[in-house]
Amino acid sequence: MRIHEVSELKTLERSVEQNTESQRKAVLDILKDVKEKGDKALFQYTEKFDGVPLDTLEVTNKEIDEAVASLDPSMVDIISEAARNIREYHEKQKHESWFFTREDGTLLGQKITPLDSVGVYVPGGTAAYPSSVLMGVIPAAVAGVKEIVLVSPPGKDGKLPAAVLTAASIAGVKRMFKIGGAQAIGALAYGTETVPKTDKIVGPGNIYVALAKREVFGVCDIDMIAGPSEIAVLADETANPRFIAADLLSQAEHDPRSAVFLVTTSAELADKVAAEVEAQLSRLPRKDIAIQAIKDYGAIYLVKSLSEGADVINKIAPEHLEIMTKDPISLLGKIKHAGAIFLGEYSSEPVGDYFAGSNHVLPTSGTARFSSPLNVDDFTKKSSVIRYSEQAIKENGRKISAFARLEGLEAHARAIDLRLEDK
Amino acid sequence: MRIHEVSELKTLERSVEQNTESQRKAVLDILKDVKEKGDKALFQYTEKFDGVPLDTLEVTNKEIDEAVASLDPSMVDIISEAARNIREYHEKQKHESWFFTREDGTLLGQKITPLDSVGVYVPGGTAAYPSSVLMGVIPAAVAGVKEIVLVSPPGKDGKLPAAVLTAASIAGVKRMFKIGGAQAIGALAYGTETVPKTDKIVGPGNIYVALAKREVFGVCDIDMIAGPSEIAVLADETANPRFIAADLLSQAEHDPRSAVFLVTTSAELADKVAAEVEAQLSRLPRKDIAIQAIKDYGAIYLVKSLSEGADVINKIAPEHLEIMTKDPISLLGKIKHAGAIFLGEYSSEPVGDYFAGSNHVLPTSGTARFSSPLNVDDFTKKSSVIRYSEQAIKENGRKISAFARLEGLEAHARAIDLRLEDK
Repeated sequence: MRIHEVSELKTLERSVEQNTESQRKAVLDILKDVKEKGDKALFQYTEKFDGVPLDTLEVTNKEIDEAVASLDPSMVDIISEAARNIREYHEKQKHESWFFTREDGTLLGQKITPLDSVGVYVPGGTAAYPSSVLMGVIPAAVAGVKEIVLVSPPGKDGKLPAAVLTAASIAGVKRMFKIGGAQAIGALAYGTETVPKTDKIVGPGNIYVALAKREVFGVCDIDMIAGPSEIAVLADETANPRFIAADLLSQAEHDPRSAVFLVTTSAELADKVAAEVEAQLSRLPRKDIAIQAIKDYGAIYLVKSLSEGADVINKIAPEHLEIMTKDPISLLGKIKHAGAIFLGEYSSEPVGDYFAGSNHVLPTSGTARFSSPLNVDDFTKKSSVIRYSEQAIKENGRKISAFARLEGLEAHARAIDLRLEDK
Repeated sequence: MRIHEVSELKTLERSVEQNTESQRKAVLDILKDVKEKGDKALFQYTEKFDGVPLDTLEVTNKEIDEAVASLDPSMVDIISEAARNIREYHEKQKHESWFFTREDGTLLGQKITPLDSVGVYVPGGTAAYPSSVLMGVIPAAVAGVKEIVLVSPPGKDGKLPAAVLTAASIAGVKRMFKIGGAQAIGALAYGTETVPKTDKIVGPGNIYVALAKREVFGVCDIDMIAGPSEIAVLADETANPRFIAADLLSQAEHDPRSAVFLVTTSAELADKVAAEVEAQLSRLPRKDIAIQAIKDYGAIYLVKSLSEGADVINKIAPEHLEIMTKDPISLLGKIKHAGAIFLGEYSSEPVGDYFAGSNHVLPTSGTARFSSPLNVDDFTKKSSVIRYSEQAIKENGRKISAFARLEGLEAHARAIDLRLEDK
């Protein structure tokens, strides 16, 4: 990893913006096909893109039972314990409906309602991601969503990975479908003969999934446009370089476009981390991916103070931030933009990916400036509640109709005036 | 208004989906121009689309002072009082950062941070909308957003309406720009020499504004894709037909594509409302718009019970719902999908548009299924906070690395194992 001046800092420009018009065109065609032909299009695209002709799209109970039975029981226990931790954390995010009253008889409030139905996209391809299942499904379940539907692209054997099915079963998913890519997003947005139309689609995916989500936004809701992963570590001279290197590599192994940063006040630590990254990298199974990520998107920034370091972090707005300093919590107030903030040397990023309880679906590519981790609020919506009183209309009616007339909306004004006249 | 069977109910298909590829192409070209040429593009498009050559884009303090002075002082008082009510309501929406601890030394929490900067779009054209200024700006200000920027298309005189500038001033906006359309959205998303780049863009606009917002989503955040307005009234035989007709017309006058619904258990009320709509319609200044809306998107549905009525309302998922029955609040639990719910005969929809305090930027076109009124949460974001302890790593480390290996992510596993080995 190279050491850079802070002045060389660039923002993370690796977002969905970098798609081509041909990719978008392909996605539009797929969405149109799914909207018009339903299941038939899903079968066709699954054969084309996933290389497997399916008889049925929905996972059967038998498949789920077989999947759970095929896993090591201790692994089932670990997934179950992670699910309990995730549930505990997300239960704290719940909000209640509320109201307040005014003496004139007015009541104003906000009613919180869970969404009716949600689709959770789980990426497939080279690996199985049972943790993504838990992270997408559990917040929806905690919010009170009745219909949670899981979609994930099948393997060449026409099945979903046993670990994915097991996690879905543990999280309480009732319906799972073997579809992926833009066609899965279309199915969830428009509905088909067998796949229910859902009100929101969540979960990360490849560029086609991301583009498809952006296209259907408005027809249904989506969580966010996910990009490749990032980690930034803010450290002083007290930090353990081996831990830092290992944590940087944990993100670098995700994707050749993953970005990893060390921001430190210590030149000595910077050198040690750079050496440790080299040493640990050589022994990694996914080292080709990690090497590319470190080369293209890895950087060490030397700062004069931890306060300047916090400024650099806020400019990066990383998906994951680890603070490894003598007194990590003292810096929490300075951090404005980060998806998840890990404090201290035992708070290694994978702790949050799998087990602690917080969500690992996090804003990437600098979108932590304005986006949040996936959370229970994402699966509820609000309705304003307004109960205006006779006294309030008498006292304020003329003001309201004057305001409406100022905007040239006479029918608005008359709706109020009528209440005053009829008194 | 025609009376329909419930079986004839269609969902509201008037969303941003109905754009043409040529409109999208125009928007992409404008966004590209603004990104590349900055202010120069803004001047050009403002001359082209708003028909006015400007010297400067930013509104001066002198213009604001003149605007406030030009308004009737009683009107300034009304806007100020509305602003106070809106502020009171939105203050109740604020959430605090929180955490919880486990006995093993773990701390998990969620940090709430206001966005750094927000752009508020205020539609221009045939009318001035000072109320939209208050509704967009105040929630952002309550959330703690430091930089709130207002944009609105100038009139032929090269100015923004006095009422808009006054409302912006009352709401505390410091920077206002005379730009509208897709070019204004581009300016807020990418930034130009004079317009600051913002993290989120809110506020309704025409189809070009809506398409531009969808295109820049991901570069920055947006609130929602706004469509034409709707109102649905759920009423029994006790309701006042004159009030209902007036309230239906208050939405019908917005846009020829506005949708207005009466859902009632009373055939007599249905007839009376239909007659009242005709009578009141003929006397409206904006009757051409309202007649078109009523003709194309107006409908009365007769239902057998209020419970069936609530089901119909949930299928419509209206932007505005008025419940005018003997006991309106008893139906609140049955209503799942509505942007704002007005209870009882004095809760006329314009009360919420202007004065009660709730927000009038509401989900349209059936998106109340998954979207919320504009609110303070829209202007904050969350960061997860994870402080894992040495004891927790000792107890759970092996489980975490096993989970990571199940997903084939060896570097994740090693980051945890390293903490166990170094003990």
